[in-house]
Amino acid sequence: MTDHTEETGVSRRGLLGGTAKAAMLAGLAGSGGFAAGAMVAPRVGHAAEQAGVGPGELDEYYVFFSGGQSGEMRIVGLPSMRELMRVPVFNRCSATGWGQSNESLKVLTEGLLPETKEYLATRGGTYMNGDLHHPHMSFTDGTYDGRYVFMNDKANSRVARVRCDIMKCDKIIEIPNMQAVHGLRVQKYPRTGYVFANGEDAIPIPNDGQILEDHEQYHAIFTAIDGDTMEIAWQVMVDGNLDNVDADYQGKYCFATCYNSEEGVTLAEMTSAEQDWIVIFNIERIEEAVRNGDYTEHKGVPVIDGRHGSAYTRYVPVPNSPHGINTAPDGIHVVANGKLSPTVTVFDVRRFDDLFDDKIQPRDTVVAEPELGLGPLHTAYDGRGNAYTTLFIDSQVCKWSIADAIRKFDGEDVDPIIQKLDVHYQPGHNHTSMGQTKEADGKWLISLNKFSKDRFLNVGPLKPECDQLIDISGDEMVLVHDGPSFAEPHDATIVHRSKVNPAQIYDRADPMFDDAKRQAEADGVELEYAADVIRDGNKVRVYMFSVAPAFSLESFTVKQGDEVTVYVTNLDDIEDLTHGFTVLNHGVAIEVGPQATASVTFVADRPGVYWYYCQWFCHALHMEMKGRMLVEPRAV
Amino acid sequence: MTDHTEETGVSRRGLLGGTAKAAMLAGLAGSGGFAAGAMVAPRVGHAAEQAGVGPGELDEYYVFFSGGQSGEMRIVGLPSMRELMRVPVFNRCSATGWGQSNESLKVLTEGLLPETKEYLATRGGTYMNGDLHHPHMSFTDGTYDGRYVFMNDKANSRVARVRCDIMKCDKIIEIPNMQAVHGLRVQKYPRTGYVFANGEDAIPIPNDGQILEDHEQYHAIFTAIDGDTMEIAWQVMVDGNLDNVDADYQGKYCFATCYNSEEGVTLAEMTSAEQDWIVIFNIERIEEAVRNGDYTEHKGVPVIDGRHGSAYTRYVPVPNSPHGINTAPDGIHVVANGKLSPTVTVFDVRRFDDLFDDKIQPRDTVVAEPELGLGPLHTAYDGRGNAYTTLFIDSQVCKWSIADAIRKFDGEDVDPIIQKLDVHYQPGHNHTSMGQTKEADGKWLISLNKFSKDRFLNVGPLKPECDQLIDISGDEMVLVHDGPSFAEPHDATIVHRSKVNPAQIYDRADPMFDDAKRQAEADGVELEYAADVIRDGNKVRVYMFSVAPAFSLESFTVKQGDEVTVYVTNLDDIEDLTHGFTVLNHGVAIEVGPQATASVTFVADRPGVYWYYCQWFCHALHMEMKGRMLVEPRAV
Repeated sequence: MTDHTEETGVSRRGLLGGTAKAAMLAGLAGSGGFAAGAMVAPRVGHAAEQAGVGPGELDEYYVFFSGGQSGEMRIVGLPSMRELMRVPVFNRCSATGWGQSNESLKVLTEGLLPETKEYLATRGGTYMNGDLHHPHMSFTDGTYDGRYVFMNDKANSRVARVRCDIMKCDKIIEIPNMQAVHGLRVQKYPRTGYVFANGEDAIPIPNDGQILEDHEQYHAIFTAIDGDTMEIAWQVMVDGNLDNVDADYQGKYCFATCYNSEEGVTLAEMTSAEQDWIVIFNIERIEEAVRNGDYTEHKGVPVIDGRHGSAYTRYVPVPNSPHGINTAPDGIHVVANGKLSPTVTVFDVRRFDDLFDDKIQPRDTVVAEPELGLGPLHTAYDGRGNAYTTLFIDSQVCKWSIADAIRKFDGEDVDPIIQKLDVHYQPGHNHTSMGQTKEADGKWLISLNKFSKDRFLNVGPLKPECDQLIDISGDEMVLVHDGPSFAEPHDATIVHRSKVNPAQIYDRADPMFDDAKRQAEADGVELEYAADVIRDGNKVRVYMFSVAPAFSLESFTVKQGDEVTVYVTNLDDIEDLTHGFTVLNHGVAIEVGPQATASVTFVADRPGVYWYYCQWFCHALHMEMKGRMLVEPRAV
Repeated sequence: MTDHTEETGVSRRGLLGGTAKAAMLAGLAGSGGFAAGAMVAPRVGHAAEQAGVGPGELDEYYVFFSGGQSGEMRIVGLPSMRELMRVPVFNRCSATGWGQSNESLKVLTEGLLPETKEYLATRGGTYMNGDLHHPHMSFTDGTYDGRYVFMNDKANSRVARVRCDIMKCDKIIEIPNMQAVHGLRVQKYPRTGYVFANGEDAIPIPNDGQILEDHEQYHAIFTAIDGDTMEIAWQVMVDGNLDNVDADYQGKYCFATCYNSEEGVTLAEMTSAEQDWIVIFNIERIEEAVRNGDYTEHKGVPVIDGRHGSAYTRYVPVPNSPHGINTAPDGIHVVANGKLSPTVTVFDVRRFDDLFDDKIQPRDTVVAEPELGLGPLHTAYDGRGNAYTTLFIDSQVCKWSIADAIRKFDGEDVDPIIQKLDVHYQPGHNHTSMGQTKEADGKWLISLNKFSKDRFLNVGPLKPECDQLIDISGDEMVLVHDGPSFAEPHDATIVHRSKVNPAQIYDRADPMFDDAKRQAEADGVELEYAADVIRDGNKVRVYMFSVAPAFSLESFTVKQGDEVTVYVTNLDDIEDLTHGFTVLNHGVAIEVGPQATASVTFVADRPGVYWYYCQWFCHALHMEMKGRMLVEPRAV
């Protein structure tokens, strides 16, 4: 046995003691620091009825929730806070066959880097997990346009897109030259346009094992993706670890919080300095640099040097370890949240031109820096000049006035804090209805709390998180609803239902079916009339259609060892009539939506009779919707 | 191109026309048959407040919901109908690492049949999907005892068990000699005891490819599993396809609905006869047969011949295609639901002794057969003599009196139907609070509806289902809440919270950690103090512990191609402080609960710096909880 203290540089209980700040936080971590009063349920009064969405009534807002480490995106109705749909993205989904159908495997694999494809070739071909943090809808002219929701995967450094016409993921790309995509936001003006993705962890470039220990040669990367093509437009190398990001309403700048300006690799190093910074990116100058060739190409991507001293970036010092950064709907103010500092820092984007022209100093862009409480992480807005900041350590939401914070910064004797509301417990992100657009309507706030502890029936050591709904339409914030949720609704976007208009059934011309159509045409099969078994060496393609409660093929026969691809076309054309195709004891199951074609490939390596059936309830005779795959034994 | 009509024996639009019944149903399938009035939201009035569970208030009941084809079990609070937890069982879970951690892989693989292990050996080692239909809690003396919830996988013919002390799955077994485990219920008395699992699809025994087309040699199998050991006790070969199952309150009988008495393999064949049956199993006689050796052994399991004429079973004719079968809390009455018949059939279990002694005819066990409406599927009870039957085609719940149905059957002029309530839409299972036990309390009913259509914001072609909460405490059923849910809450069990008492943190003595402890001991490592890297050829075992916000190892070094197993022990001992361990760009992520040890094995085949981090939010400095895996390049 070794002396662990010596080996790791930390003692078991001393892990938290790396810095004075960490020690301060230690006592407040997890569930240690709640005020006793926080355990008492607030009485909800009238606001509860306000939130009531009766049976058959529709919610006013869509919330696009991240699923965090569950890897999925969720659609929740607000104000009822009911989960309306899970959209698999980075995860594998048993119900829809996401990660198993050929159509989903194409989305999951085609955007991977070549070296990742090689790594995964013998490991199922694709990652099966993800850590989805930030789902954000595409914008046109400063507000949501209902086209796409973009989102990141921290775990495997990817960015994905969900089509809002069908609420399915259609593109996933892996980001080269960086590790751990963390913050993600989109261009608000003139449109999206760019999707901005922060590389959190610094790594060597290239990361091929030649540089390992020497972390001074590690760098973090900021990435801009073209949201229409899902190709990487450019990257910028920065100092520090990138955290969160947001964009302006003018289409000129985007900006990210950076922690670890120390560029350390241990907790003690990362939190040692008293200041970190936000970094501002000048989009026009960067685009010009790309045109002029002022970059180094790494893995096919132009990488611009945006470290200190670059013309393309500016670094504005803020207190240690800023976390969220959020642009106000006034189009002017940007708030960086202090995390380890009790303050938030307010910037005026109108001063960024002068900053880049070196007419002013970085801190001259700061117009306020109010002290709000312990652990400010994220700020949301109501469109009436108020800001709502989550206080992680204090387990509160702090409502404050931007104008008053500026007046105080200018020397006036005014308290910008309007109200603090207890939340349960330890909030991360928070969001207001339409609050990330110029159409912020100030009706609802949700606080995404990391711990729920005693707020729900005990379900064992693993607890749900707790998304709380708060009515902000009046002068006072009023807590309306506690919503338990599975790991982890990290971030969310609240979109008025008028912005979103999905289809009820699939369009047979949807490009998702192109590969199946192409193969069917080559095989002389019409998908909509198919009941065919095509043999091509040891590859067998089985085509069938479905009309509740039957498949067009009551059985098909293959030989043991055949690679079988089954194409199912769902001819039912009424809403909510999804079929499925499951093969017993083969681990094969896919969803086939109304008017969709879906396919799955597997090796029929088990001789015998294997039933297939429809696993999406479709009809009174749903249970009878089945057939037999007959697998002839391999000749001995 | 072939003539499909000729090839399949059915024309495209004629698929539904196989039987007169199917044609009747065709017009009512999916969404075609709703009464216009059903679209109007009922006003909820006082009942809505009754269901209101304010922020911080706890629900009165746990609901253990199936996740259907999502493969998971869900825990929902009632009456709030909020999802409190997802418990991965047959699916793969990105958040918890279920299907990836060594501890979960052991559960997923060790109960597979040898031939399945062989089939999956080159396919990831385990099935990654499931179709979880019926979660039911263990009983002692006729009521829930809070030990386990048992559940089936229709897709890959398995039965699983969730431990209710930690709400994690600890056992999964594959059932031999049958395909598609459908109905599952447990022994109510004296205790569980047996778990009864219906083999739905008939197959040849053995199913080795020698018999393929000749379906007269196919058979369906009924299975009894020992709930304590999760070993198969015995199986019974029956006639027809087994559907649902239930047990009595005396410990003497269990009984299953059978459809397809025709033993056909096509929709037309399966629905051609006017009668099917329920089959009753005599537990004592079967146990005696096992003792006496009156069975054939298949794959190590005693298989008893229980086809027509057997001493071990009785077949009671009922109208075509009965579906659910449910024992009333009076301990006397059992209701089989007609599905294709508008009737339900009521049996008196007190007559089963005489039936097995051939003193009466099978139909003499029937004491009522009321006509309730179109598509009766399942029946629940309130403990006050009333039954609640879902009508799939009518999209209603029908409340009726058991006593009045018996009086009517005996010739009295009485209408047993008390009330019909519209549900939205097309209900399958329904459940009452404690209604499957002798302690049925008659407070709440949930109706698990297969279609939601227009009840929620449109989320694209794939719609949620709709679980509706109905107050049955008064004379009238009152609809209180619409709950959207992801595919597919097929079945559920409503358990009073007094019956369930999970742990808040793990016990370090939990057998789940035994393998890790054994390996650590062999390596001379103490898990609770570990910061060790043990090399064993090209196998590397990395041991670390975690205390928020740090791992005990800030980095570790391996060689490209090493098989790396990382063991993480979470030393935090307060509730709700779960850690995680994710390795960037390796598809590796696991959950590590408070006081738990978890491990994951992967091949470090990518040279370079790869960060690992904690993906379960744990602390204000959670983002800084990370370290580096340094992978030295393979010598060229």
